[in-house]
Amino acid sequence: MKPVWIKNAAQLVTVAGENGPRVREGMSDLGLIEDGSVWMENGEVVAIGTTSELEALYGSRAHEADIIDATGRLVTPGLVDPHTHVAYGGSREREFEMRLEGATYMEIMNAGGGIHATTRMTRDASEEELVAQTTRRLDSFLAHGVTTVEGKSGYGLDLETELKQLRVMKRLNDQHPIDLVPTFMGGHAVPQEYKGREDEYINVLINEMLPKVAEEKLAVFNDVFCEVGVFTPEQSERILNAGKELGLIPKIHADEIESYGGAELAAKVGAISAEHLLKASTEGVRLMAEAGVIACLLPATALYLREEAAKGRAMIDAGVAVAISTDCNPGSSPTTSMPLVMNLACISMRLTPAEALVAATMNAACAIGMQDKVGSLEAGKQADVVMWNVSNYQELQYLFGVNHVGSVWKKGVQVVG
Amino acid sequence: MKPVWIKNAAQLVTVAGENGPRVREGMSDLGLIEDGSVWMENGEVVAIGTTSELEALYGSRAHEADIIDATGRLVTPGLVDPHTHVAYGGSREREFEMRLEGATYMEIMNAGGGIHATTRMTRDASEEELVAQTTRRLDSFLAHGVTTVEGKSGYGLDLETELKQLRVMKRLNDQHPIDLVPTFMGGHAVPQEYKGREDEYINVLINEMLPKVAEEKLAVFNDVFCEVGVFTPEQSERILNAGKELGLIPKIHADEIESYGGAELAAKVGAISAEHLLKASTEGVRLMAEAGVIACLLPATALYLREEAAKGRAMIDAGVAVAISTDCNPGSSPTTSMPLVMNLACISMRLTPAEALVAATMNAACAIGMQDKVGSLEAGKQADVVMWNVSNYQELQYLFGVNHVGSVWKKGVQVVG
Ligand SMILES: [Zn+2]
Ligand SMILES: [Zn+2]
Repeated sequence: MKPVWIKNAAQLVTVAGENGPRVREGMSDLGLIEDGSVWMENGEVVAIGTTSELEALYGSRAHEADIIDATGRLVTPGLVDPHTHVAYGGSREREFEMRLEGATYMEIMNAGGGIHATTRMTRDASEEELVAQTTRRLDSFLAHGVTTVEGKSGYGLDLETELKQLRVMKRLNDQHPIDLVPTFMGGHAVPQEYKGREDEYINVLINEMLPKVAEEKLAVFNDVFCEVGVFTPEQSERILNAGKELGLIPKIHADEIESYGGAELAAKVGAISAEHLLKASTEGVRLMAEAGVIACLLPATALYLREEAAKGRAMIDAGVAVAISTDCNPGSSPTTSMPLVMNLACISMRLTPAEALVAATMNAACAIGMQDKVGSLEAGKQADVVMWNVSNYQELQYLFGVNHVGSVWKKGVQVVG
Repeated sequence: MKPVWIKNAAQLVTVAGENGPRVREGMSDLGLIEDGSVWMENGEVVAIGTTSELEALYGSRAHEADIIDATGRLVTPGLVDPHTHVAYGGSREREFEMRLEGATYMEIMNAGGGIHATTRMTRDASEEELVAQTTRRLDSFLAHGVTTVEGKSGYGLDLETELKQLRVMKRLNDQHPIDLVPTFMGGHAVPQEYKGREDEYINVLINEMLPKVAEEKLAVFNDVFCEVGVFTPEQSERILNAGKELGLIPKIHADEIESYGGAELAAKVGAISAEHLLKASTEGVRLMAEAGVIACLLPATALYLREEAAKGRAMIDAGVAVAISTDCNPGSSPTTSMPLVMNLACISMRLTPAEALVAATMNAACAIGMQDKVGSLEAGKQADVVMWNVSNYQELQYLFGVNHVGSVWKKGVQVVG
């Protein structure tokens, strides 16, 4: 594999520096280099600096390298999406149309809509079909500058299908350029067949699913939907603690629809991240800051559901490390555009352009425990790099709704552009 | 020029039928053909139908044509953007950042921000510089499936610069694939040098600018920003009537920030369209329906300004013909993505996927008087066609925030993909 030398970048955003969850001013620290250069080799970043610094170090080896002229361009680390439900079966565009045509919730359920529809279609899909569908979505992520993606199970809600989803993600992690980090989320919903017997389902989840997932090493994280009408904080805690005993790190869908103590629980169980948080209490946010729980905020979901976005600005000001994500899923956020999510982080949550970038790189990497490999451009990290068709990071957020990705490298290999 | 035969389209949306502003059920009439085919020749659509119908008609000439296999794809007319301020000088991303960093209005003005900054940068730019900047924006429109764009002057606010903006658009209409339809908008703001002497500026606009614009045939429409603190309804009416006498068709930026009688005025002067309408009164909307004024709605602007979008659903239900647009401009909507605008029409304004497409094609064409040439795919119209990387029109709106454009033809020539 030839080395790659990206040179002359108008702005090179490295996000180098503190290699952990960034808070307050740390979220604005882009490690910006003007007239920047990156030398990548063997899949890693080898050197980074100004173009004249790299001329001095590598000028004599220039003939060996693919040279990329980034004059007038912004270069950043590959984006990281720390929260998706990407490995699902089927599609629900007809349901979207029915809603807009005025259909009621019951009419949509009767027409086979909602989360149970996706569960049915995911159960019915073969592993091959799921791999094919999910590959198309990962290709779209890559085209939007995303080189690392977290993916959750949770559209199986039975042992067999949950394992199928996780195995699909394992295969895709091996065969697709994107790094796909797996999360078990048997606690996504109570399946229809257990309606009214929630605790029985939780027993199956804890006694059958979690041990099997841990034994086969199919997941790094264990996530649960703590929400009124889904799992209570007590049930969520039981599920997360059971996972912890097996080595699975807790995550939690918290306070999305109602303020329900989800942020507080995230702090209590030591979750690596808490998700959504639209209705998180001030005290819950304070406890998250204290416990070092990363807030994983999903402004595209809020837009799609016409909800007010999470209070990202206030969370940063309260000392919480904020990450952002698409929440890619077939019901509440059918999108793969992290660039739009960054735009919305600015527009709807009042993050600055710099904070939005850190939230989509370093802090997103930390939210899935990948900060030793990705999330910034530093010697020794993976050479996951995006060159954008804009000249500065402010423009990337200002010229909104457009995918400005020019080229993408994953582990030093050009995969887009 | 070789003929082009697009065949086997999973869905071909023709929007054929009534060739005028669509209202009520007419806004859902996509003229949908499954397994559709288009034969284009000499820049025009020559025939349209199912693939087997076109096989029968043109199978013997297939060897002459570029054949495009649209299996599994959606094909639609090229999108039309009926409201932009695309020909401006400079960029204001630093102002965007300052706002998010907490700068006050005065701090931004002192740092050279706001509409007067764009006016200054547009005055300072040479015609060549404006052509170069605007070309980049038009290229982005084309990449988003937009083949016809309306463009307004109004960042000159003096005779010389208003004419410069219009001449730039005239040149671009000739040299860029996109059809660029010009609107004079000297009534965009009162220039700083006329502060407190608004009526003097209006006299200059009416007695010097409008006659020159009409004489040089540099614009088709005459638009005015009727808003509290800009131009009153009375002043707006004077400006629009003066244009009408010179053959310029009225348009009006109406009821964006406050309910100010703009919709009512649009009906009274017989405007072809009224723009924004976030705060339009129910009576104003009724009068628009009665007078046949097209509502040109701008949901990306509402998003960017964190305003509630216009009541698109209610306007359609009231019998108004709704069109949608990016409002592309450096202050309140720096975007070129009509696909996102269609998504937002569904998400924020509750249009159905079909209505959003008609609003971005036929009704948008009618809003700029271009419906005899563009806005639908019918024999004799321009061969402006988009092939999308989705299989149906519902998916185009459902999988939001992503530019699903695969290929674009303008007057029968492939310009994207
Ligand atoms: Zn989720
Ligand atoms: Zn406008």
